[in-house]
Amino acid sequence: MSNGWNIEELLQGVAAGRVGIEEATERLRSLPFSESPGLSLDTHRVLRLGLPEVVYGRHKNEAQIRAALEGLVAAHGCALATWVSEAHAAGLLSVFPDGEYDPTSRLFQIGRMPVPAAVKTVAVVCAGTSDLSVAEEAARTVEFAGHHALRVHDVGVAGLHRLLARLDDLKTAQVIIAVAGMEGALPSVLAGLVRPPVIAVPTSVGYGTNLGGLTALMAMLTSCSTGIGVVNVDNGFGAAMLALRIVQGD
Amino acid sequence: MSNGWNIEELLQGVAAGRVGIEEATERLRSLPFSESPGLSLDTHRVLRLGLPEVVYGRHKNEAQIRAALEGLVAAHGCALATWVSEAHAAGLLSVFPDGEYDPTSRLFQIGRMPVPAAVKTVAVVCAGTSDLSVAEEAARTVEFAGHHALRVHDVGVAGLHRLLARLDDLKTAQVIIAVAGMEGALPSVLAGLVRPPVIAVPTSVGYGTNLGGLTALMAMLTSCSTGIGVVNVDNGFGAAMLALRIVQGD
Amino acid sequence: MSNGWNIEELLQGVAAGRVGIEEATERLRSLPFSESPGLSLDTHRVLRLGLPEVVYGRHKNEAQIRAALEGLVAAHGCALATWVSEAHAAGLLSVFPDGEYDPTSRLFQIGRMPVPAAVKTVAVVCAGTSDLSVAEEAARTVEFAGHHALRVHDVGVAGLHRLLARLDDLKTAQVIIAVAGMEGALPSVLAGLVRPPVIAVPTSVGYGTNLGGLTALMAMLTSCSTGIGVVNVDNGFGAAMLALRIVQGD
Amino acid sequence: MSNGWNIEELLQGVAAGRVGIEEATERLRSLPFSESPGLSLDTHRVLRLGLPEVVYGRHKNEAQIRAALEGLVAAHGCALATWVSEAHAAGLLSVFPDGEYDPTSRLFQIGRMPVPAAVKTVAVVCAGTSDLSVAEEAARTVEFAGHHALRVHDVGVAGLHRLLARLDDLKTAQVIIAVAGMEGALPSVLAGLVRPPVIAVPTSVGYGTNLGGLTALMAMLTSCSTGIGVVNVDNGFGAAMLALRIVQGD
Amino acid sequence: MSNGWNIEELLQGVAAGRVGIEEATERLRSLPFSESPGLSLDTHRVLRLGLPEVVYGRHKNEAQIRAALEGLVAAHGCALATWVSEAHAAGLLSVFPDGEYDPTSRLFQIGRMPVPAAVKTVAVVCAGTSDLSVAEEAARTVEFAGHHALRVHDVGVAGLHRLLARLDDLKTAQVIIAVAGMEGALPSVLAGLVRPPVIAVPTSVGYGTNLGGLTALMAMLTSCSTGIGVVNVDNGFGAAMLALRIVQGD
Amino acid sequence: MSNGWNIEELLQGVAAGRVGIEEATERLRSLPFSESPGLSLDTHRVLRLGLPEVVYGRHKNEAQIRAALEGLVAAHGCALATWVSEAHAAGLLSVFPDGEYDPTSRLFQIGRMPVPAAVKTVAVVCAGTSDLSVAEEAARTVEFAGHHALRVHDVGVAGLHRLLARLDDLKTAQVIIAVAGMEGALPSVLAGLVRPPVIAVPTSVGYGTNLGGLTALMAMLTSCSTGIGVVNVDNGFGAAMLALRIVQGD
Amino acid sequence: MSNGWNIEELLQGVAAGRVGIEEATERLRSLPFSESPGLSLDTHRVLRLGLPEVVYGRHKNEAQIRAALEGLVAAHGCALATWVSEAHAAGLLSVFPDGEYDPTSRLFQIGRMPVPAAVKTVAVVCAGTSDLSVAEEAARTVEFAGHHALRVHDVGVAGLHRLLARLDDLKTAQVIIAVAGMEGALPSVLAGLVRPPVIAVPTSVGYGTNLGGLTALMAMLTSCSTGIGVVNVDNGFGAAMLALRIVQGD
Amino acid sequence: MSNGWNIEELLQGVAAGRVGIEEATERLRSLPFSESPGLSLDTHRVLRLGLPEVVYGRHKNEAQIRAALEGLVAAHGCALATWVSEAHAAGLLSVFPDGEYDPTSRLFQIGRMPVPAAVKTVAVVCAGTSDLSVAEEAARTVEFAGHHALRVHDVGVAGLHRLLARLDDLKTAQVIIAVAGMEGALPSVLAGLVRPPVIAVPTSVGYGTNLGGLTALMAMLTSCSTGIGVVNVDNGFGAAMLALRIVQGD
Repeated sequence: MSNGWNIEELLQGVAAGRVGIEEATERLRSLPFSESPGLSLDTHRVLRLGLPEVVYGRHKNEAQIRAALEGLVAAHGCALATWVSEAHAAGLLSVFPDGEYDPTSRLFQIGRMPVPAAVKTVAVVCAGTSDLSVAEEAARTVEFAGHHALRVHDVGVAGLHRLLARLDDLKTAQVIIAVAGMEGALPSVLAGLVRPPVIAVPTSVGYGTNLGGLTALMAMLTSCSTGIGVVNVDNGFGAAMLALRIVQGD
Repeated sequence: MSNGWNIEELLQGVAAGRVGIEEATERLRSLPFSESPGLSLDTHRVLRLGLPEVVYGRHKNEAQIRAALEGLVAAHGCALATWVSEAHAAGLLSVFPDGEYDPTSRLFQIGRMPVPAAVKTVAVVCAGTSDLSVAEEAARTVEFAGHHALRVHDVGVAGLHRLLARLDDLKTAQVIIAVAGMEGALPSVLAGLVRPPVIAVPTSVGYGTNLGGLTALMAMLTSCSTGIGVVNVDNGFGAAMLALRIVQGD
Repeated sequence: MSNGWNIEELLQGVAAGRVGIEEATERLRSLPFSESPGLSLDTHRVLRLGLPEVVYGRHKNEAQIRAALEGLVAAHGCALATWVSEAHAAGLLSVFPDGEYDPTSRLFQIGRMPVPAAVKTVAVVCAGTSDLSVAEEAARTVEFAGHHALRVHDVGVAGLHRLLARLDDLKTAQVIIAVAGMEGALPSVLAGLVRPPVIAVPTSVGYGTNLGGLTALMAMLTSCSTGIGVVNVDNGFGAAMLALRIVQGD
Repeated sequence: MSNGWNIEELLQGVAAGRVGIEEATERLRSLPFSESPGLSLDTHRVLRLGLPEVVYGRHKNEAQIRAALEGLVAAHGCALATWVSEAHAAGLLSVFPDGEYDPTSRLFQIGRMPVPAAVKTVAVVCAGTSDLSVAEEAARTVEFAGHHALRVHDVGVAGLHRLLARLDDLKTAQVIIAVAGMEGALPSVLAGLVRPPVIAVPTSVGYGTNLGGLTALMAMLTSCSTGIGVVNVDNGFGAAMLALRIVQGD
Repeated sequence: MSNGWNIEELLQGVAAGRVGIEEATERLRSLPFSESPGLSLDTHRVLRLGLPEVVYGRHKNEAQIRAALEGLVAAHGCALATWVSEAHAAGLLSVFPDGEYDPTSRLFQIGRMPVPAAVKTVAVVCAGTSDLSVAEEAARTVEFAGHHALRVHDVGVAGLHRLLARLDDLKTAQVIIAVAGMEGALPSVLAGLVRPPVIAVPTSVGYGTNLGGLTALMAMLTSCSTGIGVVNVDNGFGAAMLALRIVQGD
Repeated sequence: MSNGWNIEELLQGVAAGRVGIEEATERLRSLPFSESPGLSLDTHRVLRLGLPEVVYGRHKNEAQIRAALEGLVAAHGCALATWVSEAHAAGLLSVFPDGEYDPTSRLFQIGRMPVPAAVKTVAVVCAGTSDLSVAEEAARTVEFAGHHALRVHDVGVAGLHRLLARLDDLKTAQVIIAVAGMEGALPSVLAGLVRPPVIAVPTSVGYGTNLGGLTALMAMLTSCSTGIGVVNVDNGFGAAMLALRIVQGD
Repeated sequence: MSNGWNIEELLQGVAAGRVGIEEATERLRSLPFSESPGLSLDTHRVLRLGLPEVVYGRHKNEAQIRAALEGLVAAHGCALATWVSEAHAAGLLSVFPDGEYDPTSRLFQIGRMPVPAAVKTVAVVCAGTSDLSVAEEAARTVEFAGHHALRVHDVGVAGLHRLLARLDDLKTAQVIIAVAGMEGALPSVLAGLVRPPVIAVPTSVGYGTNLGGLTALMAMLTSCSTGIGVVNVDNGFGAAMLALRIVQGD
Repeated sequence: MSNGWNIEELLQGVAAGRVGIEEATERLRSLPFSESPGLSLDTHRVLRLGLPEVVYGRHKNEAQIRAALEGLVAAHGCALATWVSEAHAAGLLSVFPDGEYDPTSRLFQIGRMPVPAAVKTVAVVCAGTSDLSVAEEAARTVEFAGHHALRVHDVGVAGLHRLLARLDDLKTAQVIIAVAGMEGALPSVLAGLVRPPVIAVPTSVGYGTNLGGLTALMAMLTSCSTGIGVVNVDNGFGAAMLALRIVQGD
């Protein structure tokens, strides 16, 4: 019982009479979730949350991203990293020859998760080319998990006819991710027109009163429509993770 | 074709040759969604969004709430109003003898929606008695729609053991609504422990740096956990509406 | 030349040689706009800006409002006061028997301005009953100035079909005043659909992330549509004054 | 009826009996604005809003701006792009030899719109050289649409005499665009002196308590003068678009 | 093993061979902190944190406060409640005849904790009579825990001589709680003069740029002195709890 | 040397050889400003700052205000209290029969300070009746100190002619206090026109984007004119105290 | 009367009967401050405000700064420019061989104003080396105008003894400029100790809760001391200009 | 008595009769803390506050940092500088061959303080690699003062099991420094689990609603746990200084 944290060993000790009940009670009282030796953290996360860990590449150097990816590939046979710069991607591609890098979404991925029993459709809707980076981060994360991403672009509320022309498509989705900068009105309009839950992603696109995306964020939260859940500014990845929890929960 | 907005009449005119194709094209170009006569708005909403209209009682006087409830009961056989004061509730109960009023959640309801084919469980989790009003607004709205609300109270992050003791219960829910004031850490902790999507509701409970609930809101949005969708401060009703879209979407 | 500010008298002095050119130059250098005796300030404002002064009733007691109204009626034969409470209105009605008070808009008016040569239409659009007070303040101010106010209510972006059904009406207006609380998306949608200039009025309707109307305000300013001018939160009167400058400028 | 969105074809089907009325009703119910094949979006916008689409160059690379300009020139014979960097402009000039680039306003234009039946005057007023970039963006956009831009520079409220000396000029304008950074007092002073509607453009010029232009913005919105509509910080283009709606609305 | 949460019973089952090791491992994996039957929550808190639970009276009615106090008295022989209104206090005094109520601090207490082995001194410093309520909440909480509160009042930075005259006293304290509204400069000055750790409590005293205490808060956090820890606005109780952790940690 | 703080006694001890130099050095090192016995604090303040202490009545009850006034009258023969409610004033007038209360400024005063050798003029300028309370607080504080307050009211920037008509008067002042709500442009305009230093007082008059006076405050601080010093929102008293330091400094 | 704005010519016309009184009245009514031909703007400013125009170098290129300096030197024999970069200064020094550039304050000056009849002392106080740039901008502007700048550095409130040691020096100043970043407590402490008016300059020195200088700004405005006027963040020049108005006003 | 500030000399003068008591009283009245000649400031600080001065390297050039370090080494035999860039560190290492530079924490140190009589343990807890820089600044400052820093990394609230596994370690610390970005929930959870005082350090890690660390800051201040003192964003050094005051106060 080297490190004292292996529950199984502890129980064996109790069963064998090597460890007193009182002592074991005391140890266990402040020990909640133990890690069995050889069971990696990441696998644990899949069990607990249904989704593997993903490498957040923003504040990491190339070596750190590489090490994290290697660990995940070893455990799951696939891996995903977000916020990977083009410079880092070039280096990673030489290490992971079957890796793929998408410069728009800044995602680097190796393989993808096994196709789920029930493949669902997540619509990713955005207004303009400026929001594409965030929208692609969402769409590709959905696809990494084996689900279908339905892209609906260029449908801002200033040109409502384009949005209305795509309603039938949107009705086929189980969840809608609505990506919008500026005044952030797209989720309000969508949630008033179609039935699926709407995940709203404000973007920092705009200037002045846009306030770095806070205006869109606040507008989405105070929407006159119901059925909208909001994530952080520019957080396409987070929107996809929420969408996956929803479609995988059935 | 009295008001010019009935699509059916217009098409009959086209079919009968009474209306030229060019003229009809022109009229239809700027006419999106028509309202068939005799089809009430509220029914339309059920068709479109799967959920009936709800009376937002905050800025309405008793007569306005009463009229809205009567219209909804006539259309659906049931009705729900939010933000109903105790004074208004007293008057409404004399008009709707089978109405129910819950002072904690400030909800007034008449009947409830038909039990769905598949009843789902929505957990409503909150930290303290101060958040109860918002939590009950969520739980009772879920129940009004015929689903099961699992109440898990008194589980703030300052006393983590109480929360951990309820994990098994929480794992039975399809969606978790996490209501939290002050620093709003509850959804982060929950989303790291269990699998269902988490709808976070910041409350205005607290003072000073609580900033009327904005601190909890911002904290929930910038969570280190993924799988969280956030709604407006104190918006228990909105959280329930999002939860219903999720559980009814299967 | 009693008070030294009458330009005409001063020039007569110069013409008559009573006042030296140097002295007159000096006096005039720092004297911009003189008030001819007997010419009231309010009349001056009509000449300068095309619209008479209006009594801002918010911080005034009943006696102050009454005195201001009497002065305006004496000068113009009509008068308008904003932010008049019901209590003050009761007292004013006993003094001005031909006055009218509208409790929704809190406007008190006596008569109205002469009908303009060209009567124009100003549309006043709003989403819900909660915005009615602000919308009526705008509409009635437009009517006080002799123009036509086209009221289009209950057309929020959560129920887009109702808005789209009124587009033809809106196309008849010279200016559109769009009143919206919550996320304030109405002006964006309108300005993308129809041609007239849109004056956006954010309202303080909502709670939490509504931020007392600032969210709607910021959203309107960062709109993805062009052709929108924004006024202060809840400032229906200000929107009407801008609309009047536009329609009277032709 | 290949894509199902051509209203004309659909009506021909109805007239010919190929499409049932019920089916057509259903299709049209959720189809608002159709796009006839071969009719470009941009032309549609001119019909709907009276002004062609403009290329927002900020987040676009040179190839994207070029493609957009080519499309617009093909449709209208002229085109305008905003926020074009000097580097991009150099490349564009080699493709569009008759293009013009103004480094102050960052506008790139090819030709201009046909001279309107009634040419109007839009005054563009600003305080200092620091606001010139925003002011020129407004003035040149007005000129692109064939109207007259009256430039009135160097008239800040700290040197009121210079402003007052230009009042007669300002009275000849149908609309005044007032560009101001720092405390943003210029529109208040102008709107108190002259009759046309005032479009206020706050600029981000200043530091510290300027708050990136928000102080000027807020000051303009809470002005003690009436008749002012405000646009986003630094949004000279938006101010011009609003001015054009006003002068073209007569 | 009725409720499945008693660790001791579970281990007895393992020891007796009634529960398999695998099953027990599984149960324990998601069970962190168990509650032995009959062990009250509040006692647990004393063990865990060294301080008993305190009743936060702000959002509770008199019956709720009374029930909580009764529970705490039963467990510990003493109890403290914060934010108790004078009205509630009157009722509580009739139930707890040996209770004490201090209207300045709004604290209601029954008895006090046993005198600690080592009584320490906590200085509570404030500038003016306006900060007294917050200062007394801190001082009396310290005294409830059996330590010595040294009150140093009326020593604002605008009259520095009064503060300097008390330095020798302050040097006798183990911790200094500095309560200050307005610009909140007191902790900076104190931490530059004397050696103990300084707990800074901003108060909401002031108006305008005081921003409800946020100005003092921010100033304290950005102090040019080191050795300052800040708590929430007006949170005298929280300051005392931090002070108690410091003095009881030795 | 009873209390150890009397410098004089200490020095007598040194001179007499009763106190060693080392000991005295040590005592004096941490003793900055001593209070001679019998010398009241308030008198000290006059010596130090040239102005007596004033009673800040906002958070004090009638008894506290009364006691403070009695102390000041005893020391100086006159006294001033700010923020005195009408209710408190009634009680104070029965105690101080020669007291004066001004309900507009909420000042209560007993006598006034001796007329200074050189009486100076402080202009107090404001825009509208809504700012009168703050302006009067400034003007009467100036008069309490024996200087001349020149009141210039009703001169907002929306009606510039009225302001320009009073320029000659303003040029006679040593200091100008400019009180302004809404967009707060008055000090900018004044400082561009006349020579004395301008003390700007933002007021909380307005609504919405006025932000409780912060918009005016920020605008005044980011003014394009120089020569302006700003005080807190609504702080007429503080403006007068700064003006007095300026005029008494000669 | 070429441009119609020369008052003198106009009056000569009236005196000679060439211009009718009515016509002249009309012209003068909207003409406030005329510019005599040949009288430069800058000279006008000296007459009006007692201080010459200063070149604000921040948004200007070298050619613009040079032209402005040349104009000012021609009119006054001396000139001052603020916010001049080292690169621009190098170029300017080759044009103005008797120019001086100070890299700390970023001021470029040519000569200085004539020594005033009464030279006054302005103390410039700051806490640390980080605030030196702003402090020097203030001190050198004071010296440019011929007055005495008393520099008192390194006297932050965290080391109060250094500040107290300089009090006698500070008492010799007519005005004190207190420059402070971080929590901005220096002016509060100073204004409580000495008699002259205090001009507070917040600086952007600090990080995090410093909020770019806004924390210091707000703290200075809500000071518990009176007699403080605040200027914009980092605005050392503005502080000097206010100080000059004060000392030149005697 | 050259500079008049040497207390000792002054007292010798009194004792010798060379200085009158009245004169000496007057001088001493405004002289609080004197500096004996030859006694360096830094030594004074150790006496006063128990900790030597530290060089804040952020706004200093290499020469300034070097000079400050030399002074401190001369006085104490050791020295510490914060915020030292890698470039500056390279130069400093050539001057101080026994210096150490840590690029993660940006600390440069020469030697360390003498080992205290009682060495205490300060735990430094953080969530992820992104917070390491701030955590190391805290840990190494603690170690510079001779105490023990217990590093507990990678324990964010999204993976609660890792945190719970380290509780026993944390219970051995006298103080816990909890470093957290994003939603800043770590201190709340810790303070609910263990007994020592918790010093919370918000970091600027995150984006969007993270608001540069303000969200974490506000969340920490409004925590539902008690026993937490908060320092500025990213201020690891400040947290250590507070911890040192606590552990050295016993």
